[in-house]
Amino acid sequence: MPLHLNSQSADFEQAFTALLGMKREDSPDVDAIVADIIADVRGRGDAALIELTARFDKMDLTPETLRFSDAEIDALVAQVPAEEAAALQLAADRIRAYHTAQMPQDARWTDEAGADLGWRWTALSAAGLYVPGGLASYPSSLLMNAIPAKVAGVKRLAVTVPTPGGAANPLVLLAARIAGVDEVYRVGGAQAIAALAYGTPTIPPVDKITGPGNAFVAAAKRRVFGKVGIDMIAGPSEILVIADGDNNPEWIALDLMSQAEHDASAQSILITDSPTFAQAVEDAVERLLTTLTRADIAGASWRDFGAIILVRDMAEAAALSNRIAPEHLEICTADPEALLPQIEHAGAIFLGQWTPEAIGDYIGGPNHVLPTARSARFSSGLSVMDFLKRTTIARMTPEALRAIGPAAEVLAASESLEAHGLSVTARLKSLNAAP
Amino acid sequence: MPLHLNSQSADFEQAFTALLGMKREDSPDVDAIVADIIADVRGRGDAALIELTARFDKMDLTPETLRFSDAEIDALVAQVPAEEAAALQLAADRIRAYHTAQMPQDARWTDEAGADLGWRWTALSAAGLYVPGGLASYPSSLLMNAIPAKVAGVKRLAVTVPTPGGAANPLVLLAARIAGVDEVYRVGGAQAIAALAYGTPTIPPVDKITGPGNAFVAAAKRRVFGKVGIDMIAGPSEILVIADGDNNPEWIALDLMSQAEHDASAQSILITDSPTFAQAVEDAVERLLTTLTRADIAGASWRDFGAIILVRDMAEAAALSNRIAPEHLEICTADPEALLPQIEHAGAIFLGQWTPEAIGDYIGGPNHVLPTARSARFSSGLSVMDFLKRTTIARMTPEALRAIGPAAEVLAASESLEAHGLSVTARLKSLNAAP
Repeated sequence: MPLHLNSQSADFEQAFTALLGMKREDSPDVDAIVADIIADVRGRGDAALIELTARFDKMDLTPETLRFSDAEIDALVAQVPAEEAAALQLAADRIRAYHTAQMPQDARWTDEAGADLGWRWTALSAAGLYVPGGLASYPSSLLMNAIPAKVAGVKRLAVTVPTPGGAANPLVLLAARIAGVDEVYRVGGAQAIAALAYGTPTIPPVDKITGPGNAFVAAAKRRVFGKVGIDMIAGPSEILVIADGDNNPEWIALDLMSQAEHDASAQSILITDSPTFAQAVEDAVERLLTTLTRADIAGASWRDFGAIILVRDMAEAAALSNRIAPEHLEICTADPEALLPQIEHAGAIFLGQWTPEAIGDYIGGPNHVLPTARSARFSSGLSVMDFLKRTTIARMTPEALRAIGPAAEVLAASESLEAHGLSVTARLKSLNAAP
Repeated sequence: MPLHLNSQSADFEQAFTALLGMKREDSPDVDAIVADIIADVRGRGDAALIELTARFDKMDLTPETLRFSDAEIDALVAQVPAEEAAALQLAADRIRAYHTAQMPQDARWTDEAGADLGWRWTALSAAGLYVPGGLASYPSSLLMNAIPAKVAGVKRLAVTVPTPGGAANPLVLLAARIAGVDEVYRVGGAQAIAALAYGTPTIPPVDKITGPGNAFVAAAKRRVFGKVGIDMIAGPSEILVIADGDNNPEWIALDLMSQAEHDASAQSILITDSPTFAQAVEDAVERLLTTLTRADIAGASWRDFGAIILVRDMAEAAALSNRIAPEHLEICTADPEALLPQIEHAGAIFLGQWTPEAIGDYIGGPNHVLPTARSARFSSGLSVMDFLKRTTIARMTPEALRAIGPAAEVLAASESLEAHGLSVTARLKSLNAAP
């Protein structure tokens, strides 16, 4: 049974704070093992990769077979049924269109002092994308990571995906091809992250690594951060649904379960102002949990971390949502747009009853890599920005330097940075000496 | 003597790779101490802060004096000479104008499928800014961190600054007031970071912490990352000057020294196509090192990490600059704009001989918090973006769901996520059942 909270109960604040503080993840401490793996790959390159892949993935590789050949990818993608290929292509097209709209503009202007200022956006040269093997090897995640990189203009995009026992997911390879991935390697785990960060004779290093992975992959990403960029370390998935009584309880129950089925540590929360609707959703969830193929996972998540919160009105719902800062937020009210301005912190918002969160996972266009564990308070989902960086530009004319240089001299003196000040003074002197 | 490289030498590639790989920082391992301090502040709150401040800063505080009162700030800022106050105000105005231009736009549109898509930018609710005490307590850094936060719309901006022995820097307090900082606390070190991240009865927690600090502060920021956001961990400063022979060697020498004087681990590099000019700059640096007040620091940096690289032409200079990915890049050539499109990776660019890098440190407008240690390959300087997050928005109409929902069903099935698919199927069924 999920947690039941009522904003009018005397103990609500305490119960809600406990809900916010719930620890849903036990990260095993694998840091020492990961440090050894990274050192091994840095030291022995391909030989270490091959040995570790034999040990962990039961795969015998050579430097020649570390990378999927084009012919191998051709053969695999040919196995994908036409319906799935078409769905993947539609998803890719929509994700590409949305992320193309995100591309930021360069700027250049001259201000009142005559200073010429601005910035330029440039793409990372090379990015690496980790794709998990086995059950969590999602072609949709590959599209969500790879397409923003390619839209941003990353020239070289390398994917690593473990193929335990040699099993490769044809849909993942097709997604890679559709997204324009340049290289795909049959390696996984911390050793793949080490190879992407430091390079081996076969795998050139990249500048940034994104993509989800298990505890070993996450620990390795933390370790190589600084040498390369990384994306956020994602926690288990979450959904918050704000719904009034005028909704189909079955649909909302399915939306809650679509997060719960990801992971026993996922969290699904319903906030509503209708006790009757709350009960109807809870009943619908119970029915679903007798039929869903992943009922064991979804049921554990719902039982351990699920919650139903009764509120007085939708303004209260928005305020609680802001404290939760959910990864996914569905707003199923009569006028969802009216509530939107009150939402301050959320990874992605799905408006109205015709927008199940699953649309966002696959086909809507926005990214499904989103901040978890309340980090939407301070961070955003994956975007083209993750594959771009901004260089600021300044150009002074003699006039501009005359106008603002003296203030720089004063500030440099106040910070006791003499050469800073002199670099301005020397130029101003020459200007004042000029006829 | 700095390193001398010539791109036409047989051993150039080897020497340049060694230059790129130079380790300039020894980070002492203070992680265990920092972990204890954070646990102490989480457990005992203000009492721990007060005790640690007495131990490290020789200051006796009470919960009432942890925070600077308005009257205390009034008294301190009244000590600032008018000329310095005016310079600080001009810097603030220029930084505010530049960062206001950075503010990104919200977007909302309807695509061909009838899907309503977009995003909204919202500010972080609360941010914390660490300001070092003592010599490195720079008012300019306070402006560079605080103004972007306030331009972004951060409602609550708290500053922590250690005041060893009770000594506060009036200019730092004035900078805080000019920038619109809401709260200033007399604490420093890992204990300040712990207080900002987890909160104490006196210091409410924030959502993100930025600002430079020593090894303890850096280790604490790494530890609280995830609970709150953090900015990049900055390394020692760097400058790369690309200059042709038609420059004043004294000016370029001053620009190189203005980084070198920051820190013995700083790095200053000159790339030029003129051997005569290279020698003239080196001679000018030697002369400066006999007079500069910080000659010991600047000299150590120049001797241990400085470099002069002779190239055939400016295209080669740009290519080498991209491999260095400098924090600061000055382009002092006849036509600096012509070289600009060839620069792919740099934190900030200063164009032409009238734009010494020091202008950017204080008064230009762009931020001086920039990526170091080659991280300009994958990251950007501080900006309003660091204090904003983007929430994606999607709203389907029944028609849009009909158009793209079936592809989501196919992909959900291919990933064996049944509830994902059913959440779409249930809605499509009702649409198809409708008259």
